[in-house]
Formats: sequence, structure tokens, C-alpha cells
Amino acid sequence: MRTQVVIIGSGPSGLLLGQLLTKAGIDNIILDRVDKEYILGRVRAGVLEQGTVDLVEQAGAAARLREKALIHEGFSIAFDGRDHRIDLANLTDGKHVTIYGQTEMTRDLIQAREATGALTLYDAHDVTPHDFAGDKPHVTYVKDSIAGRIDCEIIAGCDGFHGVSRKNVPVEAIRTFERVYPFGWLGLLADVPPVSHELVYANHERGFALCSMRSTTRSRYYVQVSADEQVEAWSDERFWDELRRRLPLHHAQAVVTGPSFEKSIAPLRSFVAEPLRFGRLFLVGDAAHIVPPTGAKGLNLAASDVHYLFEGLREFFAEHSTAGVDAYSRRALARVWKAVRFSWWMTTMLHRFPDSTDFERRIQEAELDYLTHSRAAAAALAENYVGLPY
Amino acid sequence: MRTQVVIIGSGPSGLLLGQLLTKAGIDNIILDRVDKEYILGRVRAGVLEQGTVDLVEQAGAAARLREKALIHEGFSIAFDGRDHRIDLANLTDGKHVTIYGQTEMTRDLIQAREATGALTLYDAHDVTPHDFAGDKPHVTYVKDSIAGRIDCEIIAGCDGFHGVSRKNVPVEAIRTFERVYPFGWLGLLADVPPVSHELVYANHERGFALCSMRSTTRSRYYVQVSADEQVEAWSDERFWDELRRRLPLHHAQAVVTGPSFEKSIAPLRSFVAEPLRFGRLFLVGDAAHIVPPTGAKGLNLAASDVHYLFEGLREFFAEHSTAGVDAYSRRALARVWKAVRFSWWMTTMLHRFPDSTDFERRIQEAELDYLTHSRAAAAALAENYVGLPY
Repeated sequence: MRTQVVIIGSGPSGLLLGQLLTKAGIDNIILDRVDKEYILGRVRAGVLEQGTVDLVEQAGAAARLREKALIHEGFSIAFDGRDHRIDLANLTDGKHVTIYGQTEMTRDLIQAREATGALTLYDAHDVTPHDFAGDKPHVTYVKDSIAGRIDCEIIAGCDGFHGVSRKNVPVEAIRTFERVYPFGWLGLLADVPPVSHELVYANHERGFALCSMRSTTRSRYYVQVSADEQVEAWSDERFWDELRRRLPLHHAQAVVTGPSFEKSIAPLRSFVAEPLRFGRLFLVGDAAHIVPPTGAKGLNLAASDVHYLFEGLREFFAEHSTAGVDAYSRRALARVWKAVRFSWWMTTMLHRFPDSTDFERRIQEAELDYLTHSRAAAAALAENYVGLPY
Repeated sequence: MRTQVVIIGSGPSGLLLGQLLTKAGIDNIILDRVDKEYILGRVRAGVLEQGTVDLVEQAGAAARLREKALIHEGFSIAFDGRDHRIDLANLTDGKHVTIYGQTEMTRDLIQAREATGALTLYDAHDVTPHDFAGDKPHVTYVKDSIAGRIDCEIIAGCDGFHGVSRKNVPVEAIRTFERVYPFGWLGLLADVPPVSHELVYANHERGFALCSMRSTTRSRYYVQVSADEQVEAWSDERFWDELRRRLPLHHAQAVVTGPSFEKSIAPLRSFVAEPLRFGRLFLVGDAAHIVPPTGAKGLNLAASDVHYLFEGLREFFAEHSTAGVDAYSRRALARVWKAVRFSWWMTTMLHRFPDSTDFERRIQEAELDYLTHSRAAAAALAENYVGLPY
């Protein structure tokens, strides 16, 4: 087979890139090692920056999002038993974030792709990018026990942190930066109305907690747990009790409990691999960088990578200019590092660190005090939360 | 002897408090273990917040300051070979900082005090506060080999980090918070015109550097050195060479060198002792808290302590209300911690840490990049630099 762009990975970044390329008349094939049901079973974040929503719109997959998504013009930071609202709209000249589950967005993008007839190969095993140092790369895979090969001009690695794209780059060509946090997030999903119509980020002496949601009837709650915690140790009842203890009283009393239908522990990590381009292979999203979920930048960063790469590829194929693809790594990484900094800062400010000194604890309190009493500091938080400009 | 307030320490905070009290008709005596010449020989910071200038004005000691001081409406942060100006006036609705050497300010306050006839006992040894748990405290000392005693109602400990005031508080009554930084500042004072009309804070791979000044003809320069560095190892020539290497080219070329008349290494430390009140003994400034010099908050924090304590003492003596003195520790510490946080943050952002990870280095670069490209972030820096409101 032959195509212009092979996209490895059919998560939201691969699907978004594929859809933008197809709309621009650029042939592409998506390969994924798992099947559609598996992809739609993943539970992920749901706080979208406007830039991300705009890309979904541009990809022609925003109809259901427009109808179902929630607009959030603020959120709360809770500590010392009190809520402090960050008025995003007021602090950013009217900007907001959009609440829409990543699973829903993925489903919309799959449907939009199916409507165009563009090819997605699920259950493609042993996917391997080849010869991307030259200008005639190809990708091999095995599907239904039959070996396949796709010749192409560009390979986009959208296959996540554990994917094959980054792993096939010579190790000496990559520089990595990493911070592993000494805790994880225990998350619970339940069909109960959220405790508040906006998100609540709580810093409590027992640890961080987050009240989030996917819709007005589906809540997503998290509590900070130690890095070696086992999810089996957490009955729903224990989770609800712990969540309530970490929230200001009026929120704790408003928690509506119900049976969970998903419960899992995610480690927290900051990770960046540089550069994002190796000849004709381009890394996108989690394949190159991971942020802790505090501030919900992961999916939004993948979308901003897609934005820069799509602009570059459009110039490459339509205008035969390499300027955009040559600039991709630098442009995307500049924004990546700003979001990595923001996510690290939000994480550091809101969590309890088992090894923190008394001095560091007071600095954290002073930061929360300053942030919730200074318009300039709150504006800096807000502009990052709604998303820095592309 | 008897007085209303004994002030231990005749540095700027003790002198400022004494002068405000005298002007309000409250009797006070200042004790210092050293003599006037020693005090006037100390070299210290010279960046004053408006609140500090206002207090000096209120103390009746601002005539020479008004005439000689420089007004700075901005400063520069240099990295990657370039200057980025922080436009204080524009970012804070017209606020600025005032450049006036602490030594000059101390001289003015001494002269103002001498004009009022208020008593200062220099060369007072073995100064010791007594019975401050009750309401009849007194202070003992030895001067010219003769033991003295002053009975009073209030004792103000303005005697710095190594002073006797904090050391005489029962250790179990104090909680301390500390961070020692793994480097120091090597400072040089010379009668040469400054490299720029505003301050330049430089983050360079060889370490931090600061171009500061006392006047248009007296420059104060600093370079970060390792914690165990010896000043004897630094000839003037070596200092000037090192300074130039850490500055953007246009500044390096503009450095005017000349013989130093002061050169010393200061360690960097963040330290807070809580509370600031022990019965009738009140700690002020460096006696209770130390900040690293980055951001020049030390003297300004001492002045804000003086502000809160003076308001409390005026109420105490004139209105027989303990509300202000009862609130002193809480009010002063709230502002102290904000400045401790700011000084820690400035220090962390601008210095090279010998033990930093690659990730931390990139976070620092991302912070500098964000700060110099976001108005909100620059505004948060600016409002702290000019001084948060009392």
C-alpha cells in the first residue's frame, strides 16, 4: 500500500490529525495495535481548551460536542476549609474551558473519519516505522497474521508514551527530561450529579482531591494516594469517605454517592523527549511528552502538537515548502514546556508531598494565599488553564 | 532608668521604629552592642519599596533621600544573551522602587534621632531582655563596665538574625522554618558608573549575576559563587572578568571597572521564626526572618514589621487598646511569608543549582520564557517587586 501520511495510533491526536489531513486532501492511513472497542473503553480527561475545540470543529467532528459539552467559566481552589473561585472569564477577557469526555470526543472523531472513508487498520500488530532518516519511509505491521507494508512520505507517531514510534528512534538521538511524583491519583467514575457545577481542586492535609465531571449526571472524582497504593484496597465507601474528608464542609455535605463503574490509580509523571522530529518521523502528544493530570493539559497539548504538525504538513504537501515541518519541533516544544511548567506548578502547589520540609509546606500555603488574593497571580493561572495561544 | 519602649538594635528597623515612636510621643531608648561607626560601615541593599520610603518620610528622615535617591520604573532580567525589561510602572499602574543605600538611610535616621534628643546607648554589652512574659519587663546591659537596667512596658527586638532578642525566647515557644541555598553572593562595591541605569538580574550558565547600584557613580555588582568560596580567591580583575562573562554582550562591553572598596561573600538563606510576639517582647525584621537578597526584600520586610508594630504600639499607649499588638504577629507574618515566597521564587528562577536535574533546568528556562512573554506573569512579579500593600 501507499499513502502520503501514516499515522501510528488512533487515539484523539491520531484521529484529529487524520481528519484534518483528509479534509485538506492529504491521504493518510491510521494504524492501531488495538481495536475500536478498546479505544472507546479508555477513560480520560475532559477539560478542553478553546484551541482544542477549534481543531475538533475544523476536523468536522464538533456537532455532538456543541450540543452536549458544558462551558465552564471558572473553577475553585479549596484549602483551609474554604473555596476560592478562579473566575476564568473575568481574568481572561471572556475565555472559558469546555467539559467534554475524551471518550466522547474520540467517538465523534471515529465517526467523522468513517464518514470520509479514510482507512484505519485496527488490530495491527508489530507496527514498525522504517527508513524515516531518508525521504522514502515505510511502516510495516502484521494484521490477521499477514504482514503488511505501507510506503509513505511522512510518519506521525501518535501512539502514546508506551508506543513504538519513540522506541524506534535511535536512543542517542533523543534527550529525555523526567520527574516522577511520589504519589498517584485514585479516580472514580459514577453516574451521580457532580458536587458543584464547576471543578473543585482541593489541597487538604490528608492530600489532594479533585471534583470533576463528564456531564451534569456523570461525576469524576480523584483523591491523591501514595505511589504504591492498590486499587483493591479502596471500596467505593472508603473512597467516598476519603473524598468528603478532603473537601470544605459545604461540598462534603453535597457529595452524592453511587456505585462506581470505573476505579483506577494513575501515577503522576512529567516527561519530555526532544526533539519531536527525526527525519520523516514526527512525534505527537503523549508519544513525546507526559504531564501530570493537574490542570488537564495532556489532551490539549496533543492537540496543539497536531495543530503545528498539520500546518507544517499542509505546507509540505500543498506548497512543497519544508518551513513548517522544519519548525514543528521547535514551535511545538516551546508550548509543550510552558504547559509542562504549568502542570508541574499546579501539581506542586496542590498536593501533599510526603518528603516536604516545614519550609516547603509554608511556601505552598503562601503561594495559595497569594494566588487567591492577587488578581495578577490569578490571571497568570487563568491564562494557562484556558490555554496559552498557539 | 525607665522608658516606655526599649528597642534592642540600632539598625534601620530599630531606628525607624524609635523615630516613629518619638514622633508619636512614646518614650523609647535604643541599645546596641556596637558603636555608630560600625553600624554606618555596614554595606547593605538599597532597593526601597514605596511603603518603606513612606515610613522614612513619616519618621521625618526623608529630606536627603528625596534629594539623592534614584527612582527606578523597571529592571531587566537577562538570559540567553538577551535583556527582558520588566516595566514596573506600566505593570503596576505607575508604581516604582527607590534606590537609596541602606547605609545612607541609617545615617539619616541617626541624625533625625539625634535631633530629637532621644537616647541611644551604643557599646552596650550583654544586653538581655527579662520578664517579658509578664507586664513589667526590663532590659539589662553593661556599658563602660557598669551594669545598667531599663524598666519598660515593651521590648522591641530589632537586633538581627544573630541578636539576643530571639535567643532569649524559650526554644519551645518558637517554631522555625529554614532553607539554606547551595551558593552565596560575592559582592563588590566600586565608585564607577553602573553598567545600566536600571538593575540587571542575569541567569547565565556560569551562575547568577546582578548589576545594581547605590547612586549614578557607585556600583554594586554580585556574582553567584559556591557556598564554600573564599573572598581572598577573588582579585578585582577576576571578579570583573567573571561578571562580564555572565552578562549579555552589550552590558559586558559597557562595564566600567575600577578598584573595589568592599568585597565580601554572603550566604543565601530563607528563615522564619514564629510567632513574632512573646508577651511584651516583639521581634522585628531580621531578628525573626531572613530572605535571600534576590528581589531586595530584607530591609523592606523589616520596614513592614515596623509599620505593623508601630500601629499596634500607638494604639497600646494612646488608646490603651491591645488589639494592634495582639494582631501584630499574625499581620506581619502574613506579609512576611508572601515576601519569603517571592524571594525564594526569584532565587530559584535566577540561580544555577549545582544539584538540579535536567528537568528542573528546563522548568527554569520555561519559567523565564513564560515570565518574559506573559503580561499577567510579569505583573505578578512586578507587584511583588514594588511591594505588596501593607
